Amino acid sequence: MKYSKLFGRTMKTVSSDLKIASNKYLHQAGFIRESAAGRYFYLPLGMMARDKVAKIIEEEMDRSGAQKMLAPVLHPLELWRQTNRTESVSFELTKVKDRNGSEFALGGTAEEMMVDLVKKFNISFRDLPFQIYQFSTKFRDELKARGGLLRLREFLMKDGYSFHADEADFKKEYEKMKKVYCSIFKRLGLDTLIVESDNGYIGGEYCHEFIVESQVGESYFLYTKDGAYAAHEDVAKFLKEEKNLSDQEEKLKEVKAPRGNTMADGVKFHKLPLWQQLKDVMFVDEKNRFILAIIRGDLNVNETKLKNLTKANELRHATDAEIRKLKSEPGFISPVGINKEVLVAADDSLRTIKNAYGGSNKKDVDLLNINIDRDYQPNLEGDIALAEQGFLSLSGEKLLSGKGIEVGNIFQLGYHYSEKMKAYFTDKDGKEKLYYMGCYGIGIDRTIATIVERYHDEQGIIWPEAVAPFKAHLIALGKEEKIYKQAGEVYEKLLKQGAEILYDDRADVSAGEKFADADLIGLPWRVVVSEKSLKAGGVEVKRRDGKTSEIVKVGEVGKYIGE
Amino acid sequence: MKYSKLFGRTMKTVSSDLKIASNKYLHQAGFIRESAAGRYFYLPLGMMARDKVAKIIEEEMDRSGAQKMLAPVLHPLELWRQTNRTESVSFELTKVKDRNGSEFALGGTAEEMMVDLVKKFNISFRDLPFQIYQFSTKFRDELKARGGLLRLREFLMKDGYSFHADEADFKKEYEKMKKVYCSIFKRLGLDTLIVESDNGYIGGEYCHEFIVESQVGESYFLYTKDGAYAAHEDVAKFLKEEKNLSDQEEKLKEVKAPRGNTMADGVKFHKLPLWQQLKDVMFVDEKNRFILAIIRGDLNVNETKLKNLTKANELRHATDAEIRKLKSEPGFISPVGINKEVLVAADDSLRTIKNAYGGSNKKDVDLLNINIDRDYQPNLEGDIALAEQGFLSLSGEKLLSGKGIEVGNIFQLGYHYSEKMKAYFTDKDGKEKLYYMGCYGIGIDRTIATIVERYHDEQGIIWPEAVAPFKAHLIALGKEEKIYKQAGEVYEKLLKQGAEILYDDRADVSAGEKFADADLIGLPWRVVVSEKSLKAGGVEVKRRDGKTSEIVKVGEVGKYIGE
Repeated sequence: MKYSKLFGRTMKTVSSDLKIASNKYLHQAGFIRESAAGRYFYLPLGMMARDKVAKIIEEEMDRSGAQKMLAPVLHPLELWRQTNRTESVSFELTKVKDRNGSEFALGGTAEEMMVDLVKKFNISFRDLPFQIYQFSTKFRDELKARGGLLRLREFLMKDGYSFHADEADFKKEYEKMKKVYCSIFKRLGLDTLIVESDNGYIGGEYCHEFIVESQVGESYFLYTKDGAYAAHEDVAKFLKEEKNLSDQEEKLKEVKAPRGNTMADGVKFHKLPLWQQLKDVMFVDEKNRFILAIIRGDLNVNETKLKNLTKANELRHATDAEIRKLKSEPGFISPVGINKEVLVAADDSLRTIKNAYGGSNKKDVDLLNINIDRDYQPNLEGDIALAEQGFLSLSGEKLLSGKGIEVGNIFQLGYHYSEKMKAYFTDKDGKEKLYYMGCYGIGIDRTIATIVERYHDEQGIIWPEAVAPFKAHLIALGKEEKIYKQAGEVYEKLLKQGAEILYDDRADVSAGEKFADADLIGLPWRVVVSEKSLKAGGVEVKRRDGKTSEIVKVGEVGKYIGE
Repeated sequence: MKYSKLFGRTMKTVSSDLKIASNKYLHQAGFIRESAAGRYFYLPLGMMARDKVAKIIEEEMDRSGAQKMLAPVLHPLELWRQTNRTESVSFELTKVKDRNGSEFALGGTAEEMMVDLVKKFNISFRDLPFQIYQFSTKFRDELKARGGLLRLREFLMKDGYSFHADEADFKKEYEKMKKVYCSIFKRLGLDTLIVESDNGYIGGEYCHEFIVESQVGESYFLYTKDGAYAAHEDVAKFLKEEKNLSDQEEKLKEVKAPRGNTMADGVKFHKLPLWQQLKDVMFVDEKNRFILAIIRGDLNVNETKLKNLTKANELRHATDAEIRKLKSEPGFISPVGINKEVLVAADDSLRTIKNAYGGSNKKDVDLLNINIDRDYQPNLEGDIALAEQGFLSLSGEKLLSGKGIEVGNIFQLGYHYSEKMKAYFTDKDGKEKLYYMGCYGIGIDRTIATIVERYHDEQGIIWPEAVAPFKAHLIALGKEEKIYKQAGEVYEKLLKQGAEILYDDRADVSAGEKFADADLIGLPWRVVVSEKSLKAGGVEVKRRDGKTSEIVKVGEVGKYIGE
C-alpha cells in the first residue's frame, strides 16, 4: 500500500485529552477516530490490525473444536425476560421497538440467544459437548466511556457458549479454554494472569478474568507470590484472624462521646483498637432500600461483594439527611436499635471480635461492649470485606496487589440459563436433562488497546509481528526522482516476495517527518531506500525496536524480515 | 470436520411454509435458523459459506483500491437530521436513545457516517479520489420480511463510499465498480444484469442494480434484446407515441354516462379508444396529502415514479368515502374542476392525445373533449407511467421484461451529501470544494440465497466450489468397524493434503440417509469409502452435479478434486 493513497493519516499532535498511550497513539497514527463517545471508526490501518487479532482468535477457537456461527444483533426482549436479565442489567441494556411493536435488546452478551437456538434442535447426549462462538457487535450503555478502545459502548466481542451433559464434562472444557485463551493472548504478544472474578450480570457461580498487568487498567486483583492464588478484589478472600474471642461478653453500656465523626476520632476518644470499633456504612440501592453495611473497624467494605450479598444492582451512599430521617445520626450509626426498614448486612469479620464499640444512632453517644446476636441481629451475613495488599490469603500467604486490563473472561453458567429457559437434551436413559453450560468472551477492541499499552515507546507504537497492519515500512529518502523510481522498484520486488509493505512514497515530506511517522505507526521493520543504501548495494533495514540498521540486498529483504 | 460433531444438522422435512428453494434448503441442510422474522442465525455450515462469500468480495474490493474500514452500528441521529433522512426513511429507520439521552439510528446505509468521518481530516485534491468500504450489520424495519435470506430486517452489507474532486473522476470509478461487481459475482457463480434503477432514499441522480434473473426475485425490469437498454420498471423509460395530436381541440362537453366504474365500461359506453380515455387514480400520502395521478387510459401508473415526482414517501389508494368527501365520485374522478386541495400529477403521455374523455367528478356524468392546459392544469407533470413488455424503448426497440433478485447496487450521489453536510476538500487553487460522491452496496445474505436459488436441484443445494463450506463430503459406507477405521484414515490423509472435508462418520445411519444428506448439503464432491471401493484400491469420487463416479487412489484425491 502506498502511503499517499492511504485513507487516515498521522497527525503531528493530538488533543491533550488523549492521556492514555493507546488512545493517543491509535488516534495520532491514524488507526481510529471517535464517532460518538464510546463508539469508534476503525480506519484502514486499524482495521488491518483488528482483522489480524480476530483471525488469531478464530484460528485458536477453531483448533479447540469450537464452531463459529452468528446470532442476530437484535435479541427478542422476551428471551431476556425469561432469564430476568431485563431487570438485572436494566441500566446497561439498550432496548428498541420496531414498527410492528416487537421489542428487542441490543445484546451485551448472547446467552439467551444461544440457548434459544439450541432449543430448536433435538440434542442427545451423543451430540454433547459442543461449543459455538461468534464475533459480533455488542452494546453496553455505560454511563461513562473511557480511554479510547479500553471501555466502549459498542464493541466487537468473541463470545463462545458451551453445552454439556454434566458439571464434570464442563470442567474439562473450562480448563481447556484457560489453555486456549493463554495461547491466543500469547500469540497476540500478551502475558495474562488468570484471576478469579465476579460474574456481574452473567449469572453462574464462578468465573475468571484474563488480565494483562497495566497501570491504565481498571481491574484490581490480589495474588500470592507463589501464584497459588489470584483473585479480583471484588471476590478476593482473605484470612480474618480472630481477635479477642476468648474475652467474656461484657454488659452493653451507653456513654457520652463528644468525638468527631471519623473512625480515627473513635479510636482516639475511647483509646481502644481500631479493629474493635464497628464500622457502619449506610447505602441506598436502585429500589430505594436502605442497606447498612457493618464490618470490623480495620476493614473496608467492597461494594461488589455487598451488592452480591444484598442482590442490589446499584448502590450509592446515603446522604446525611436520609440518615437523620431514619432517626440515626451520621458518624454515630449503629445496628443496635436501627430503624426496622434498614436492611443490615454484616461482614463475617464481626464473628472475630467481642465487646465492640461504636455509635448509638444518637449524636455524641456511643455504645460499648456491642456483641453480635446478643445486641443486634444482621439480616444478612457474609463476606463483604475488601481484600488489601498485605492481608493474608486463606492459606496464610501474604497477598500482593496488582492492576491490569481485563482482556478476556470465562464463566461457569451451570444450569442458570438452561433452567430458566427450559432447555433440555435427551440423556442415555432417555430422560430430558438440563444443559450444564459455560461461556467465554474476548473483547477485540480492548485487546488491541492493550497490545498498544504493552508495546509502545515515546515515539509511538511498536506492533508485534503477528498483528501489525503491515510487516514493513518502506521509506524513500531524498527529493530526487531517481530515488523514487528505485524505491518504487524495491516496493514492487518486495510485494512479489509476498511481503506486506507500507510504502511512504511522498516526495514533498522531509526525511525527519517520514521517520517520525514510521515510528508512530510502528510497523515491525523499517526499510529505507536512499542514495547511500543504493550505493552500498541494497536497502537499510532496521527493526522498529532495534538500535542498529543493516544493509540488505533487495532480493533478500523478504527473507530477512521473515516473510 | 466430523459430521457427528457438527452443530446444526439436516432435517428430513421442513415446514411447508418454506416455499422458496433457497429458504427451504438453507433450513433443511442446517445452514440457517430463524430468530425472529427477518433475523437469522447462521449455523456453522452457513457461516463458512458466508465467510467465503465475504472474502471474495473483500479480495476484489481491495484489488480495486478500495480500503476496508468500519463505522459504528449506531449512527448519531443528528447526522441523519442534517440530510433530512430521518424524514425520508422514517418508516424503515429504527431509532434508539441511550441512558444519557443521546439519540441514534440503527443504520440502513452509512453515507452520513462516512461523510462525517471524512470531515475529520484535512483532505486535499492530492488525496482524491479514494473509496472506503466496510462489512457491517444493517437494519431495515421492513413491514414484511420474506423468503429467508432474501429480504431481511437485519443483514450484512458490504457498503463502499467514494470521494472525488469532480463528476468526471467519479464516472471513472462508477464504471470501474461495474467491472469489479461483475468480477465479484462471476467468482460467486452468478451472472448479473446491470439495470438502471430507482435510488430510493439514498439520494443522487442515477444508479444501477445488479440483478440475477430469478422467478423468486422482486425486481422487475425491462430490457432490449440487443442489451443496449436495461432498467428497473421503477425507472424504465419508453416511447409514448403521439396519438391524435393533429386533431382540432373540440369544445368541452358534459354528457350523461350511466356506465360502470371501470375503464372498460368507459370504452364500451363512448365507443372511443382506451388511449383517449383519462385514467385518474387518487392516492393519499404519509402526510395525508391527496394526490391525483392522471395518465393516458392505455397506460398504468408506477407508484415509485409517482412518489419521486410528488416527493411522497408512502402512498395508498384513497377510499371511496375519502373521494366523496373531496366532492368527487369513485369511477368518475376528473382533473377538471377537482377540489383545490388535491395535488394533480400528470403523466407526460397526456401530451400525446387531444379531446380525451372521462369522468366529471359527478356520478354517471362524463366529459368529452378534455384538453390539457385548456381544461385542467396539472400541479406536477412528468413520467409516472409503468413500462411494460412489448412497449418500445426510446430508441424504438421492443422492450422485453424480466424478473430477478437485486444482489448489488451502485449509486451516483453527486453533491447530495457533501452539500447538506458541508464536506469540503481543498482544491489545487486553494479553494474549498464539495466532494462528488458515489456509493456501492452488496447484500451478503441475499447473495447467498441467490447462489442457492441458482444452484440447486430436487435433492438439495449444489454449491459452486468458490463458496462451498467444504470441498468434499466423505462418506463411510457400511456398518463394520473396519470401514470406519479405514474411512478415518482416508479423512486424516485428505486433511493432510489440505482438503476441506466434511466426514460423515455416523455408524448408526443408513447409506441412503447419508447420500441424501450429502445431496442436501451440496458440497461439490462426494467421496465414498466402502468395502467395494477399498477392494478396487481407493475411494469412489463423484461430483455433486455429476452422473458417474470414479475410483481414485486415496493419495490422489486431493489433486483429483483440485485442492
